[in-house]
Amino acid sequence: MGAIVLGDNRYGKAEIRLLRVTRGAAAHDIRDLTVSVALAGDFAPAHLEGDNSAVLPTDSQKNAVYAFAADGPPGEIEDLGLRLARHFLATSPAARRAQVRIDEHAWTRLDAHAFQAGAGGERRQACAIAEGDAAWVAAGLADLLVLKTAGSEFRGFARDRYTTLEETGDRILATAVTARWRYASAEGHDWAAAHGRARQAMLDAFAGRHSRSLQQTLYEMGRAVLEAVPGVAEIRLSLPNRHHFAMGSDDLFHVDDRPYGLIEGTVRREGAPPGPPLDW
Amino acid sequence: MGAIVLGDNRYGKAEIRLLRVTRGAAAHDIRDLTVSVALAGDFAPAHLEGDNSAVLPTDSQKNAVYAFAADGPPGEIEDLGLRLARHFLATSPAARRAQVRIDEHAWTRLDAHAFQAGAGGERRQACAIAEGDAAWVAAGLADLLVLKTAGSEFRGFARDRYTTLEETGDRILATAVTARWRYASAEGHDWAAAHGRARQAMLDAFAGRHSRSLQQTLYEMGRAVLEAVPGVAEIRLSLPNRHHFAMGSDDLFHVDDRPYGLIEGTVRREGAPPGPPLDW
Amino acid sequence: MGAIVLGDNRYGKAEIRLLRVTRGAAAHDIRDLTVSVALAGDFAPAHLEGDNSAVLPTDSQKNAVYAFAADGPPGEIEDLGLRLARHFLATSPAARRAQVRIDEHAWTRLDAHAFQAGAGGERRQACAIAEGDAAWVAAGLADLLVLKTAGSEFRGFARDRYTTLEETGDRILATAVTARWRYASAEGHDWAAAHGRARQAMLDAFAGRHSRSLQQTLYEMGRAVLEAVPGVAEIRLSLPNRHHFAMGSDDLFHVDDRPYGLIEGTVRREGAPPGPPLDW
Amino acid sequence: MGAIVLGDNRYGKAEIRLLRVTRGAAAHDIRDLTVSVALAGDFAPAHLEGDNSAVLPTDSQKNAVYAFAADGPPGEIEDLGLRLARHFLATSPAARRAQVRIDEHAWTRLDAHAFQAGAGGERRQACAIAEGDAAWVAAGLADLLVLKTAGSEFRGFARDRYTTLEETGDRILATAVTARWRYASAEGHDWAAAHGRARQAMLDAFAGRHSRSLQQTLYEMGRAVLEAVPGVAEIRLSLPNRHHFAMGSDDLFHVDDRPYGLIEGTVRREGAPPGPPLDW
Repeated sequence: MGAIVLGDNRYGKAEIRLLRVTRGAAAHDIRDLTVSVALAGDFAPAHLEGDNSAVLPTDSQKNAVYAFAADGPPGEIEDLGLRLARHFLATSPAARRAQVRIDEHAWTRLDAHAFQAGAGGERRQACAIAEGDAAWVAAGLADLLVLKTAGSEFRGFARDRYTTLEETGDRILATAVTARWRYASAEGHDWAAAHGRARQAMLDAFAGRHSRSLQQTLYEMGRAVLEAVPGVAEIRLSLPNRHHFAMGSDDLFHVDDRPYGLIEGTVRREGAPPGPPLDW
Repeated sequence: MGAIVLGDNRYGKAEIRLLRVTRGAAAHDIRDLTVSVALAGDFAPAHLEGDNSAVLPTDSQKNAVYAFAADGPPGEIEDLGLRLARHFLATSPAARRAQVRIDEHAWTRLDAHAFQAGAGGERRQACAIAEGDAAWVAAGLADLLVLKTAGSEFRGFARDRYTTLEETGDRILATAVTARWRYASAEGHDWAAAHGRARQAMLDAFAGRHSRSLQQTLYEMGRAVLEAVPGVAEIRLSLPNRHHFAMGSDDLFHVDDRPYGLIEGTVRREGAPPGPPLDW
Repeated sequence: MGAIVLGDNRYGKAEIRLLRVTRGAAAHDIRDLTVSVALAGDFAPAHLEGDNSAVLPTDSQKNAVYAFAADGPPGEIEDLGLRLARHFLATSPAARRAQVRIDEHAWTRLDAHAFQAGAGGERRQACAIAEGDAAWVAAGLADLLVLKTAGSEFRGFARDRYTTLEETGDRILATAVTARWRYASAEGHDWAAAHGRARQAMLDAFAGRHSRSLQQTLYEMGRAVLEAVPGVAEIRLSLPNRHHFAMGSDDLFHVDDRPYGLIEGTVRREGAPPGPPLDW
Repeated sequence: MGAIVLGDNRYGKAEIRLLRVTRGAAAHDIRDLTVSVALAGDFAPAHLEGDNSAVLPTDSQKNAVYAFAADGPPGEIEDLGLRLARHFLATSPAARRAQVRIDEHAWTRLDAHAFQAGAGGERRQACAIAEGDAAWVAAGLADLLVLKTAGSEFRGFARDRYTTLEETGDRILATAVTARWRYASAEGHDWAAAHGRARQAMLDAFAGRHSRSLQQTLYEMGRAVLEAVPGVAEIRLSLPNRHHFAMGSDDLFHVDDRPYGLIEGTVRREGAPPGPPLDW
C-alpha cells in the first residue's frame, strides 16, 4: 500500500455555554444556549507541518459566538447558527465548510424575571452548515422522554434458536426521543413554528397511534413530521427502547437501565434534494 | 489506644427502580419510583464472624418493595416509605432502625395512556425511618433548577488580601434546589398537599423576594416553607451557586460549570422535637 | 416533492454487559465486555406495516451474545465481534449487514483470583461488520487521558477581529484520546499485538514529538499507528483539547470543563481499500 | 411550636480544579487537585438580614486556593488542606470552623514530561478541619474498583416470606471502595506513606481473606487499615455490591447496574479521641 496521507478533518470550539437576557420593561426573556463550532477545509499545513497560519484559534471562535450573542437578541437558533456558520466561512479563508450546532435549554416563566428549568432535560437543537454559497439547516430535539401504558404490542416476530421472548399484546412502551430533521432549503421558514409542529406531530404519533413495534412507531413519528411540516426533506430518529419488565402482574414493572434496544431510522421525502448527513 | 471494634453500620438495597400503573376505565395513572432501603441494628455477628443468620438479604428487601408496590396503589411516597420501614423492622428481628428513601420521577399526561417526563430532572423525595414504635417522615425535592435575572445583588461583603470580586447590584442568580424537611409527626398529614405548598413557597420566595446573597435567599426559602406548612419542624437546603459571568454587557453571560459556590443551611422551628439528620 | 419513504434504518440490542471468567488451576482470568448489536437490511415491512415477521427480537440478540460468551473463552474482541456479526447475518435472513461493537474494560491482577480496575476509564474497542461474504474489522480505544507539560506550543495562528489569544511557546497539552482504526483485511491479524502496538505508537507520538498544535499531534499519532501496524488502512482520531489556563505563573493552571477545543481527523494509507466509516 | 430560627449552616467554594507543575531539571512533576472549601460560624446576619459584612466571598476562597497552590509545591493534600483550613479561620473572623476537602487525581509517568491518567477513576482524598486551635485530618479514597472470582460466599442468611435468593458458596464479589479514615492527631504523620499502607491493607484484605458476606469483608478491610496504620482512629467504608448474576454457568455473568446492595460501616479503635463525622 501507498503513502500515508491526511484524510477528512475538522476542528472547532465545542460546548460554548451562554445565557442571553433581553430586558423588556415589563418582563425579561432568557435564552440558554450551548454552541459548538466545527470548521473543515484546507488545514493540511497545520497537520503536516505544524504551520498554523490558516488556523483560526478555537478561542477566537468562542469570542465570535459571544460577540454575535451580545449583538442584539439572538433570534431562533436556526438563524443564529446560519449567521455564525456564514461568518466563519468569511473570516477563515481556509475553511471550506463551517458547521454550527446549537442546543437550546428550555426555561418556564415563574414571573416577570424568574424562571424554572423546562421539561425533563429535553433540548431543542439546530445545526447550520455553510459551504461556499450553499447552506443547509437542520433542527431537532434530544431527550424527549415519553411512555405509554396502552396501545403497544410486539408479536409475530422472527425466532431463532436463542429466542425465548414471549409475544405480548400489551406492553409498556417508553423511549427518549432524539430527532433531527433537515429542511429542504435554508431560508423562508418560521423556525419556531416549524419546530413546534414537528414536536407536536411526534407526540401525537407516539401517543395516538397503535404500536406493533418501536420500528413502526419510529416510522409513524417520522412520517407525521414530514406531513406536518412541508419544508422538511428528511428526518432521522433514534429511539432507545427503555425496557419495563412485568413483575408478576400487569401493573408493576421493573425499569432496566442496560441493555436496551436501539431503533434508528430515517424517513424522507422522495425527490427531496440531498444534504449533509443527520449525524451531528 | 484500645481494641479494634465495629462502629455504626447499615446495609440495604439501593435504587430499586419500578413503575406502577393503575388502570382506570377512562385513563391510566403511573408512578415512577426509585426506592432505597437501609437497615441498622445488631449485625455485629455478620461483620465479625461471617455469621449471616440475622442478615435479611438485600435481594429479599427488593422483593418486598416490589410486593408492596404490586399490592394496590402505592399511595403517597411518604406513606409507602412508612409502610415499608415498619415492615422491615417487623420482618428482620435484628434491625433496630429501618430507613426507606423514595424518589418519585414526575410525568405529565399527554392523553389517557401516554405521558411525557416532567420538569427538568426535578424529583420529589421522601424518607421514612422506623425505630421501635417511633417513626419519622421527611420529604423534599432535588434538582429544581431556578434562575432570576433581577432582584439579586451581592455587596458589602468581607474582604481579605485575596479578594478581587467586585460588588454587584444586579446579577443573575441561578441554583439547583435540593430541599429536605422533616415533619414534626409521622402521621396526620396530607403529604401531597404539604409537598405542593412547600414547593410553591420556595418558588415564591426565590422569585419574589429581593436577594442580597444566596444565604439570605436560602433562609427566606426555608422560612417560607415553615410558614406555609405548619407540620414541618425543620428544613435543610443545599443551594449551589451556578455562576453566570457577565461578558462585557449586562445582557450576556458565560455559564460556568466549576467551581461553584455551595450554600447549605437549615431553618427550624424552635422547640420542635428533634429527629434524625436530614442528610439522606 | 414526492411520496414519504423509509430511508436507512437499523436496530439491535445495545450495551449488553457481561463478565466472562476462565478458571485455570493456578489462576482465573476475566473478561469484562459491553456488546452492542445493530442489524440493517430489509426491515421495511416492520416499519411500514407493523409486520414483525422478519424482526429477530433484540432480546434474542442478547441471548445469542450470552450464548457465544458462554461457549468457551471469547478470544480477542475483534474475533468475537466477527463471529457474532456472521452469526447474526446467518440467523436473520432479512439482515443484510450486521455490526457488532464491543468495548473491553481492563482489569489489573491483584492475585490469582482478584483484580483491580484498569487505567483511567480507558476502554479497548472493536467493531466488526459482516455484509454478505464480506467483513470489516475496526479497533480502537476510548478515554485514554494524556497530558504533557513540555514540548507543546501554539503560535503563528490566523487572526480575525475577535482574536485575543496570545501566542504561547510552552503550554500544557492534555486530551482524552478516542481512536478508531480499520484493518485492511478482516483476517490474519494478531489483534492483541496490533492493538498494543497501535496504543504504544500513539503514546510515544504524544509524549515524544514536539507539538505545534493539537492538529499536528493528531496527525503524528495517526501516522505513528499506520507505521507501527502495517495492516491498518485508516485511523480516525478525536482529540478534545482540555484547556489548562495559566494562573499568573508558569506552574499553576486552572482546569476548565467547557468549552473545549475539539480536533478530529483521519490519517490513511493511500490506495488502501475503502471500508465502512469509523463513526461507530 | 415556637419561632422560626436559623440552624446549622455553612458555605464555600466547591470543586476548584487546578494542576500544579513542578519543573525539575530532569523531569516535571504534576499534581491534579480538586479543592472544596466550607466555612461555618457566625453567619446569621447574612441569612437573616442580608448583611454580608462577615461573608468572605467564595470567589476570594478560590483565589486563596490558587495562591496557596502557586506558592511552592503543595505537599501532601493532607498538609495543604490543613494550611488552607487554618488560613480561612484566620482570614475570616466570623468563621468558627473551616473544612477543606481535596481530591487528588492520579497520573502515571510516560516520560520526563508526559503522563497518563491513573487507575480506574480512583481518587485519593483528604479532608482537613480547623476549629479554634484544634484540627482534624481525615484521608481516604474513592472509586477503587475491585473484583474477585473466588473466595466469596453468601450462605446461612435470614429468610422472610419474600426471600427467594439461593445460597451460594462461590460468587463474584465486586465493589467500588469508598473509604475515609480519621487520624487520631493532625500532625506527625507521613501522610503519603500512611495512605499507601492503608490502601494496600484494603486490597490485601479484599483479595486475600475469604468472604462470607460483604459486611465481613468491610470489617476485615477496616480492621486491616487500623492494624497497618497505628495513627488511624476510625475508618468508614461504603461498599456498593456490584451484582454479577450467573447466566446458566459458573463462568458467565450478567453485570447489573441497578439496584445494588449498599454496605456501609465504621471500624474504630476503642478509646480513640472522637472527631468530626466521616461523611464529607
